[in-house]
Amino acid sequence: MAYNLLKGKKGIIFGALDEKSIAWKTAQRCHAEGAEIILTNAPIAMRMGAINQLAAEINAPVIPADVTVNDDVENLFVKAKEHFGGGVDFVLHSIGMSVNVRKSIPYPENNYEFTHKGFDISALSLHRVLQYAMKHDAINEWGSVVALTYIAAQRVFPDYNDMADNKAVLESIARNFGYFYGTKKKVRVNTVSQSPTRTTAGSGVKGFDGFINYAEKMSPLGNASADQCADYCVTLFSDLTRMVTMQNLFHDGGFSYTGVTKDVIEQMEK
Amino acid sequence: MAYNLLKGKKGIIFGALDEKSIAWKTAQRCHAEGAEIILTNAPIAMRMGAINQLAAEINAPVIPADVTVNDDVENLFVKAKEHFGGGVDFVLHSIGMSVNVRKSIPYPENNYEFTHKGFDISALSLHRVLQYAMKHDAINEWGSVVALTYIAAQRVFPDYNDMADNKAVLESIARNFGYFYGTKKKVRVNTVSQSPTRTTAGSGVKGFDGFINYAEKMSPLGNASADQCADYCVTLFSDLTRMVTMQNLFHDGGFSYTGVTKDVIEQMEK
Amino acid sequence: MAYNLLKGKKGIIFGALDEKSIAWKTAQRCHAEGAEIILTNAPIAMRMGAINQLAAEINAPVIPADVTVNDDVENLFVKAKEHFGGGVDFVLHSIGMSVNVRKSIPYPENNYEFTHKGFDISALSLHRVLQYAMKHDAINEWGSVVALTYIAAQRVFPDYNDMADNKAVLESIARNFGYFYGTKKKVRVNTVSQSPTRTTAGSGVKGFDGFINYAEKMSPLGNASADQCADYCVTLFSDLTRMVTMQNLFHDGGFSYTGVTKDVIEQMEK
Amino acid sequence: MAYNLLKGKKGIIFGALDEKSIAWKTAQRCHAEGAEIILTNAPIAMRMGAINQLAAEINAPVIPADVTVNDDVENLFVKAKEHFGGGVDFVLHSIGMSVNVRKSIPYPENNYEFTHKGFDISALSLHRVLQYAMKHDAINEWGSVVALTYIAAQRVFPDYNDMADNKAVLESIARNFGYFYGTKKKVRVNTVSQSPTRTTAGSGVKGFDGFINYAEKMSPLGNASADQCADYCVTLFSDLTRMVTMQNLFHDGGFSYTGVTKDVIEQMEK
Repeated sequence: MAYNLLKGKKGIIFGALDEKSIAWKTAQRCHAEGAEIILTNAPIAMRMGAINQLAAEINAPVIPADVTVNDDVENLFVKAKEHFGGGVDFVLHSIGMSVNVRKSIPYPENNYEFTHKGFDISALSLHRVLQYAMKHDAINEWGSVVALTYIAAQRVFPDYNDMADNKAVLESIARNFGYFYGTKKKVRVNTVSQSPTRTTAGSGVKGFDGFINYAEKMSPLGNASADQCADYCVTLFSDLTRMVTMQNLFHDGGFSYTGVTKDVIEQMEK
Repeated sequence: MAYNLLKGKKGIIFGALDEKSIAWKTAQRCHAEGAEIILTNAPIAMRMGAINQLAAEINAPVIPADVTVNDDVENLFVKAKEHFGGGVDFVLHSIGMSVNVRKSIPYPENNYEFTHKGFDISALSLHRVLQYAMKHDAINEWGSVVALTYIAAQRVFPDYNDMADNKAVLESIARNFGYFYGTKKKVRVNTVSQSPTRTTAGSGVKGFDGFINYAEKMSPLGNASADQCADYCVTLFSDLTRMVTMQNLFHDGGFSYTGVTKDVIEQMEK
Repeated sequence: MAYNLLKGKKGIIFGALDEKSIAWKTAQRCHAEGAEIILTNAPIAMRMGAINQLAAEINAPVIPADVTVNDDVENLFVKAKEHFGGGVDFVLHSIGMSVNVRKSIPYPENNYEFTHKGFDISALSLHRVLQYAMKHDAINEWGSVVALTYIAAQRVFPDYNDMADNKAVLESIARNFGYFYGTKKKVRVNTVSQSPTRTTAGSGVKGFDGFINYAEKMSPLGNASADQCADYCVTLFSDLTRMVTMQNLFHDGGFSYTGVTKDVIEQMEK
Repeated sequence: MAYNLLKGKKGIIFGALDEKSIAWKTAQRCHAEGAEIILTNAPIAMRMGAINQLAAEINAPVIPADVTVNDDVENLFVKAKEHFGGGVDFVLHSIGMSVNVRKSIPYPENNYEFTHKGFDISALSLHRVLQYAMKHDAINEWGSVVALTYIAAQRVFPDYNDMADNKAVLESIARNFGYFYGTKKKVRVNTVSQSPTRTTAGSGVKGFDGFINYAEKMSPLGNASADQCADYCVTLFSDLTRMVTMQNLFHDGGFSYTGVTKDVIEQMEK
């Protein structure tokens, strides 16, 4: 079902790897709601993924950009303005990677070169995107930026490793840049803290299956799906949420404010 | 601009006093988005207000209910089910009153009979609404309940008096009942923490003008208006936010996560 | 081991029922640290408990007071000032009771007379204590007030029932009154959010055993004991924490910021 | 006044630059409470400061360590164990530096090489300290680690620049490493979020004077001093707070939970 919520709006979506990706589904939903989209991803992720298939489906150009490279990010906004003949109305940041996670290095033994790399890709990338967007005045007034995050920024989930720290700083960047972009241009910046989701990226985390089941049992409505997350992002890109900014918004079926459930207690008694 | 976001949905709106009310504007917006509405308010508020004018405008029946009276609340849901031929999809709770505030009794000297009265009207009323809704199975699966609150539940605003405590418990009730209604019937319950708003009710608070100006200067996007709050409530009643529950959602132009602004610092240096 | 941390200080301790009580142990620890104590409890609790045994042990007078009765609370402070020849330096509020819990009425079916009663005893009692202390100028400058609370004020623990709402408002009262007492007299007011503790009162909560085991597994340091809580309260009453006010302080072995532990994940996989 | 709270304990204190430093005062207070101390700082900071004067005063060896260099940090713990003939009981991390702040580069224009540098010094340094402590089993069971932070990790203070993000990740590291060190060795890790303090480091922040006055007016007890912070750290290093871990503890005269004060409202009306 579509409502034309984003009719006439233009957006950039980072991180659509394959059809399980939240970014992929958000791009589809935004398109269905009437938006025009530019897709972008790192060159390496584009080779691994199927982004061109999505691009064809929603008639979106693909502009590669490595979010750790200033010039790439700057080029993306320059090209986006050319393509749209003006600024964009929304941006989705769905990017995260930890070398420590990939190499199964436990948190207390993290390698700091890897930590810096993950910090640059997963967190600083949002700052870089916003800096070059602001420099080129590439987000329209009342525009909306959403970055995806996870509750490990607030509470410890041991296997999430240094991605927890990356998400903490990602949320801090959203808050701080949200202040500056809000006062300057009425642009809002928020993070959506999503349930654990069985995406290709998410599945890489150790013990993911045990964990996703725990989250399901700990969420009064169950885990939120990628499709539902896409729906929620649509509302945040729409004109109906203009005064929501600098927030971290949990989209998790109630997990975040549930201390324990009957299901978990029963499991504990086994 | 309307999107048919609530087409086919049915809702009950508490607290539409006059055309400045957030509830009033939310009722109008929900109607414009395709919903059918029942309006309700306390008999005394109905005499003071202009609810019948709104009722005519959006073709909504008015069912009086004193939210401190169990039978009134129960009757409301029985009548609502009769009227709609089934349950409702959303409920807006926009109710608050403190006798201590009205009588200008400073917080440290509060009269506890008045405190109990304010607690009953402002906070326990949400529990009562949800209890009788659940008893009569009067909210449909995936229904959405929103109660309006204020950031005094988290931080001290001295003139807000015992309404701060009432809002703290209101948010707690939303959370707790959200768990039970979520696990039982997939109904979500959230609170929206709105900027100070120049409603007839809001204006009663001492020092309101000085305060609203401070909030304006402390919010990167400025204070959110009642109209914007209505827009936001529409998204929360829609099917696009089904997995958001047990949350307190700030709708305040960024006030909640702003520690200080340049405008305020400049004012401090005068 | 004692340090004379409270040498020369005078305090009032509410809620010492029997030797399992946190209040009981705190009274002992404060006495050991050099403080003089007045004990108080509701007349009915005094009949059930063994408070006179503690009174003898630490050489403390007992002044009965029903915290729901204004005159009783006022009398307590009048008598305390007479006894000490001046104000007190610290107060411990360790009081909570829910009729809905006692009668095993599930949260969604709560009886509101019972809710009001529990609210009065468990939460408003703190306001009443502070109001009459302030009226009689019965807390010395830089005095310290601590009330015991539980994390159900932040997250849902279904069996905790309406005590969750009571604790939410208790914490709000601490914050709000902390503002007024701080600006007026440099008195600080905080809440300590303690691990589930096997006290006579705590044990009354349904499913308490299953729950305390879950909390143990979810706390990196395990559950905090009543003795450890008494130690922590001593630091908060001392002169070393003068600038800590309006805070909710978790004393829980890390439970509050732990999303999941290996122990719990392993249990979930059984 | 001293209480022998740390009698027999051994600790390492990072960041004592000069006599205005919180670390300097904490070292003095710990010494007065009976602890033996090792002082450490970056070689460059040692040349600028007066650490040897403090070392003489409290009879503490100085072991230089650049916290961005793995070998330096490892060497520190090896030497500390040799010096004390065993592990330490507490560690104070009082380290922060942002090149973007020093060079007055506004947040939206941050240079990312500088950001990485600041992240490494201000935040990752805590991880590095804990990693090498754990590797050499250099913190005794029930040991206590405190890192100093600032509320810009939660709310935006525009001039605090990228130090806000650094403090957000510092607090996340405390939480995450707190989990691992807690489950492994009962070591607790907390952050203390201190009022703005007129130290040599703090004074470098642009607009610091205007800001410190604002904080003073917004804190019911006024701003906490460096001396008071030292007192508070002593309680956190003592055996009386063993079950407090993974917390961010505000030591700020109530600033953190104050939404507005009468003083600020009056100033706004000028």
